[in-house]
Amino acid sequence: MYISKAFIPILKNNPSEAKIKSHQLMLRVGMIKQSSAGIYSWLPLGFKVMKKIEKIVREEQNKIGAQEILMPTIQSSEIWKESGRYDDYGDEMLRIKDRQNREMLYGPTNEELVTDIFRSSIKSYKSLPQLLYHIQWKFRDEVRPRFGIMRCREFYMKDAYSFDVSDEDAVYSYNKFFLSYLKTFKRLDLTAIPMAADTGPIGGNLSHEFVILAETGESKIFTDKRIFDLDSAGSVIDRKSLEDLRKKYEQFYSVTDEKFNKEEFEKEVLEENRLITKGIEVGHIFYFGDKYSKPLNAAVDLPGGKKDFVKMGSYGIGVSRLVGAIIEAKYDDKEEIMKWPFSVAPYELAIIPMINKNETSALDKVTNIFKHFESINIDTIIDDTDENLSSKIKKFNLIGVPYQIIIGKKSEGDLLEFKETGKDPQNLTIDQITKILTELKAKN
Amino acid sequence: MYISKAFIPILKNNPSEAKIKSHQLMLRVGMIKQSSAGIYSWLPLGFKVMKKIEKIVREEQNKIGAQEILMPTIQSSEIWKESGRYDDYGDEMLRIKDRQNREMLYGPTNEELVTDIFRSSIKSYKSLPQLLYHIQWKFRDEVRPRFGIMRCREFYMKDAYSFDVSDEDAVYSYNKFFLSYLKTFKRLDLTAIPMAADTGPIGGNLSHEFVILAETGESKIFTDKRIFDLDSAGSVIDRKSLEDLRKKYEQFYSVTDEKFNKEEFEKEVLEENRLITKGIEVGHIFYFGDKYSKPLNAAVDLPGGKKDFVKMGSYGIGVSRLVGAIIEAKYDDKEEIMKWPFSVAPYELAIIPMINKNETSALDKVTNIFKHFESINIDTIIDDTDENLSSKIKKFNLIGVPYQIIIGKKSEGDLLEFKETGKDPQNLTIDQITKILTELKAKN
Repeated sequence: MYISKAFIPILKNNPSEAKIKSHQLMLRVGMIKQSSAGIYSWLPLGFKVMKKIEKIVREEQNKIGAQEILMPTIQSSEIWKESGRYDDYGDEMLRIKDRQNREMLYGPTNEELVTDIFRSSIKSYKSLPQLLYHIQWKFRDEVRPRFGIMRCREFYMKDAYSFDVSDEDAVYSYNKFFLSYLKTFKRLDLTAIPMAADTGPIGGNLSHEFVILAETGESKIFTDKRIFDLDSAGSVIDRKSLEDLRKKYEQFYSVTDEKFNKEEFEKEVLEENRLITKGIEVGHIFYFGDKYSKPLNAAVDLPGGKKDFVKMGSYGIGVSRLVGAIIEAKYDDKEEIMKWPFSVAPYELAIIPMINKNETSALDKVTNIFKHFESINIDTIIDDTDENLSSKIKKFNLIGVPYQIIIGKKSEGDLLEFKETGKDPQNLTIDQITKILTELKAKN
Repeated sequence: MYISKAFIPILKNNPSEAKIKSHQLMLRVGMIKQSSAGIYSWLPLGFKVMKKIEKIVREEQNKIGAQEILMPTIQSSEIWKESGRYDDYGDEMLRIKDRQNREMLYGPTNEELVTDIFRSSIKSYKSLPQLLYHIQWKFRDEVRPRFGIMRCREFYMKDAYSFDVSDEDAVYSYNKFFLSYLKTFKRLDLTAIPMAADTGPIGGNLSHEFVILAETGESKIFTDKRIFDLDSAGSVIDRKSLEDLRKKYEQFYSVTDEKFNKEEFEKEVLEENRLITKGIEVGHIFYFGDKYSKPLNAAVDLPGGKKDFVKMGSYGIGVSRLVGAIIEAKYDDKEEIMKWPFSVAPYELAIIPMINKNETSALDKVTNIFKHFESINIDTIIDDTDENLSSKIKKFNLIGVPYQIIIGKKSEGDLLEFKETGKDPQNLTIDQITKILTELKAKN
C-alpha cells in the first residue's frame, strides 16, 4: 500500500475528548471514527487489526472442534420471554418495534437464540457434544458509553455455546474453551489470567474472567502473582490434561473484586506474592447447566430411553475490545511508540524513503524493494510522500508498524537500514531482512 | 469434517412453507434456520458458502484499489435528516429510540454515513480518488418478507462508495466497479448481465443492475440475447479499456421493466434476438454526482484554490442473497442435485464409504484417504455413519459437494471410484484425484 493512496486520516495532536490511551491512539491514527455516542466506524487501519484478531480467535475456536454459525443481530422478544430474561435485562437491551408493531431487540448475547437452534435440530445424545460459535455485532445500550471502543454500545464479539449430556461432559467442554482462551490470548502476545468470577445476568455457578493487567482497567483484581508465570504449554484436548491445567491455575488465588474476600486472600497468599491491581476483561466463560435448556425445553434422548435437558455453557471474547486492550498493554504514550504484536499489526513492514520534492528517482529505487516484500506476502506500506524522514519515522512509530526499512541519504550499496520499532537499527541485505520477516510470519 | 460430528440438521422432505427452490434447499440441508419473520440464522453449511462468496467479493474489491472499512449497523437519524432521506425512506427503515430517547435507525444503506466519514477526513483533491467499501448487515423492514434469504429483512451486503473530483474521474471509478462486478460474478460461475436501470431512492442518472437469469426472479428483463456471449476478458484498469468494455455491453439492448420501452426494444433488437424473461438482481451500481456531498457539505480543495463538492457513486452486491441466487441457477430440484461452483462449495470433496454396523474396519481404511485430502488443504467431509450407500450419495448430491469418492464393497486395489456430482464415475488412483483437485483449487 502506498500511504498517499491509503485512507489513514492522521491527527497532528491527541484528541482532547479521549481519556485513555487506546481511545487517544485509535482516533489519532485514524483507526476509528465515532458516528454517534458509543458507536464507531472502523477505518482501514483499525479494520485490519480487528480482522487479524478475529482470524486468530476463529482458528483457536476451530481447533477445539467448535463449529461456526452466524445468528442475526435482531431477535424476537419471544424467546427472551421464554427464558424469563426479557424483563430482567433492563435498559441495556435495545428494544425495537418493527413496522408490524412486533417487539424485537438487538441481541446483547445469544443464549436463547442458540438454544432455539439447538432444540429444533438435535434430538439424541449421540449428536453431542456440540460446540457452536459465532462472531457477530452486539448492542448494549450503556447509559454512559466512554473510553472509545472499550466501553461502547455496538461491539464485535465471539460468543460460543456448548451442549452436553452430563455435568461431567459439560465441564470437559468448559475446559476446552479454558485452554482455547489461553492459547488465543497468547497468540495476541497478551498475558491473560483466568480469574474466578461472578456469573451475573448469564447465570450459573462456574465462571472465569480472563483479565489482562492495565492501569486503565475497570476490573479490580486480587492475585497471587505467581500465576503470571504459568502457561498452557503441553496441555492437549484430553479430559485429564485439561483438568490438570485448570488445577494448575486454580492453585493460586486470583479473583475480581466481586469475588474478593480479604480474609481468604491474606490466608492463602503470602504477603510477598500478593498483587492488587487493575485489569481489563477480554474474555469470560460460564457454565450454567440447564438454566436455559429447561425453560426453553431443549432436551435430548438419553441411552436408556429417558430424556434430559442439555447442559450448557457460554464463552465470550470481545473481539473489538481486544483492539483497545492490546493498545492499553503495548502503547508507550510518553515515547509515542505503539508496538503491535506481529500477528495483528496493521502492516508488518514500513518502507520509509527520504524523498525530495521534484526528485522522483528516490521513489523509483525503493519501489522494487516494496514490490519484493509484497510479492512474498509481507503486509507492507511505503511512505511515498515528501515529508521529512523523522516525521515519517514518528508516524510509523505511532501507527505501530513493527518493522521499518529506512532509506536516507547515506544509504548505499546492498545494505539497508532495518529496525524493529523502538530499537536500534541494523544494516542488513534484503535477503537477511526477508529471512527475518518470513520466519516471523511462519511463527505467527 | 466427520459428518457424525457436523451440525448439519437435514430434513427428510421439502419444507412445505418454502415456495422457491433456494428456500427449499437451504432449509432442507440445514443451511439456515428462520428465527423470526424475514430473519435467519446461518448454520455451518450456509455460513461456509456465504463466507466463501464474501472472500471472492472482497478480493475483487481490493483488486480495483477499494479499501475496506466497517461502518456500524445502528446509525443516528441526524445525518439522514441532513440528506433529506429520513422522511423519504418510509416504513422500510427500522427506526429505533435508544434509552436516552434519541432517534436511531438500523442502516438500510450507507451513503450518508460514509459521506460523513469522508468529509471529516479528506480535504484535498490530492487524496482522490477514494474507493471505500464495507461488508455489513443491513436491515430493511419488508412488509411481506418471503422466499427465505432472497427477500428477507436482515441481510448481508457489500456496499462501496467512490469519491472523485470531476464527473469524468467519477465515471472512471464507476467503470472500475463495472469490471469488478463482471469478474466477481464470473468467479461465482454466474452469468450476470449489466442492465440499464432506474436509480430509485438512491438517486442519480447512471445506473446498472447486474441480473442473472432465473425463472423465480422478481425482475422482468428485456434483452438482446447476444449480450450473454460477452465477457470482460482482456479488460484492464485503464480509462480507455473500461470505456470500451462499457460500450461493448451497451451496444445491446438490455433493461429491466422500469426502463422498458416496447417501441425501442422492437426497433433496436431483431426479433430472433429478443429475450424477455425473468432474473434475479445480484448487484446494483449508481452514479449520483453531488446528490449527497452537497447537502452534507463534503467538498475538497481544487488545484486552483477553489472548492467543490465531491462526485460520488455507490455500488452494492447482496452477499447473502447470492447464496440463494446461486442455488436458483444451479439446483436441479427434479433430480435433487445441487451443483455448487467449486469456488464456493460448502465442501469440495465428500468421502462416502460403505460402513456396516459393528464393523469399524471399513472406516479405518478410509480415514487415511480423508486425512490425505485434509492435509493438502482440500475442504473434505467424510460420511462415517452406517446409512446405506445410496442414501449417502443422495445426501451429498443434495448438499452439493462437487466431487465424491465412493468406497463400496467392490473397491479394491489402488483404484478409487471418483465422480463429479451428477456425472459418471471414473476409477482413479489417489494421485490422479489429488492432481484434479489441486488444479481446480489453484484455478478458483
